[in-house]
Amino acid sequence: MQENILGIIGGLGPMATAYFLELTVKMTAAYRDQDHLRAVLMEAPDIPDRTAHILDRSKPSPLPALTGYAKKLEALGCGCIAIPCITSHHFFPELQRAISIPLLNIVEETARHLRENGVRTAGVMATTGTVRTQLFQRALAQEGVGCVLPDGAHQEMVMRVIYDDVKAGRPVEEDVFGEAAAHLRANGAECLILGCTELSLANRDRPLGPGCLDALEVLSRAAVLACGKPLRPAYHCLITR
Amino acid sequence: MQENILGIIGGLGPMATAYFLELTVKMTAAYRDQDHLRAVLMEAPDIPDRTAHILDRSKPSPLPALTGYAKKLEALGCGCIAIPCITSHHFFPELQRAISIPLLNIVEETARHLRENGVRTAGVMATTGTVRTQLFQRALAQEGVGCVLPDGAHQEMVMRVIYDDVKAGRPVEEDVFGEAAAHLRANGAECLILGCTELSLANRDRPLGPGCLDALEVLSRAAVLACGKPLRPAYHCLITR
Repeated sequence: MQENILGIIGGLGPMATAYFLELTVKMTAAYRDQDHLRAVLMEAPDIPDRTAHILDRSKPSPLPALTGYAKKLEALGCGCIAIPCITSHHFFPELQRAISIPLLNIVEETARHLRENGVRTAGVMATTGTVRTQLFQRALAQEGVGCVLPDGAHQEMVMRVIYDDVKAGRPVEEDVFGEAAAHLRANGAECLILGCTELSLANRDRPLGPGCLDALEVLSRAAVLACGKPLRPAYHCLITR
Repeated sequence: MQENILGIIGGLGPMATAYFLELTVKMTAAYRDQDHLRAVLMEAPDIPDRTAHILDRSKPSPLPALTGYAKKLEALGCGCIAIPCITSHHFFPELQRAISIPLLNIVEETARHLRENGVRTAGVMATTGTVRTQLFQRALAQEGVGCVLPDGAHQEMVMRVIYDDVKAGRPVEEDVFGEAAAHLRANGAECLILGCTELSLANRDRPLGPGCLDALEVLSRAAVLACGKPLRPAYHCLITR
């Protein structure tokens, strides 16, 4: 397999980017520094807010800045690009047209990982903004995986965990997370997608339980493989047991 | 203060680089993504082994590769460069001459932080390679801070913690670390420099106790300030209590 330099557009947010980088290191079956993947990271927290533009088109679009960084990474010799931010994937079709190296798609890779591991129906835990973009719904449908979304009250619980807990630097309220999770499972979800990088960070600090799939881990796994590096065996299937 | 884009030459090693990036995020007094520092990271684990060349000049030098990356970062608009790897600082005088933006020096910043916080004598916990380069000894002397090095038997204990424990993915043997630390303190060290990024990673996973100064934290703090960002108050003094 050809070795690629990984391009990363980061800073959306910055903590998820650092964790993504850590995950690629952990997942690579390397026995010395020189076995690890090469990468160029453009940490660009100044890119206009993605959700703000999706909800209100009069707000500045992040697309011109994303395109600029993607072109720079291509010019620097990167073979593929990862963006450890789920909402930004809303802009991927246009972004992909602007460059000739592949974008690794966190949403499509997550849906594929579920299908490849025999999951028939998945629940989505993501921001209300991400749910509205239909990113996960479409990707799951494309892979033939059923999709369960929380109802209004339970979606508010997911948002409470993301905003009032993780973004505010507090531990996840386990009863709130647990109630939203139980609701999705009662509606047929065999596996819960942690579809927001704040949930990935919460899961890093204290595992959110079995039957979850962290989308950021999926992107990291895809990046290691796309760079031609071998995976550590523990990371072949990422669904928690 | 002028805002600078931080250039990072990373991958020496890769886990320390991810942790360095995480530390810069944690230390910045930011309240939204857009407040965080901008950076370009060249993750280059393929740079020839630093210690190998220092111990045997017939082995390939890392200097040409380091220079190439530093020049690229300068051309990309970075205002300063950090390298989260202590041994590579042996090559800093030559590297600095090749570029016109400043290199942030982990060793000099550590010595300065000790002096600024009233430490009169510090103990050095680092690899035998780093001790031989005299990097810490010279930087401490320049700041007027006394320097205590372990004797041969205790230097071996430090190496055992770094290589047999941390690099092998095992927790630090607390009695071995404790004996080396007690030896340095008995010889007058008021503060122990964690002068190897493996020790920084160990300290991240389980704090190594009071009276320590993690050099990687010092570099991260210096990077936040050099980029014109405000520090979170908890990171003004980095000596553990």
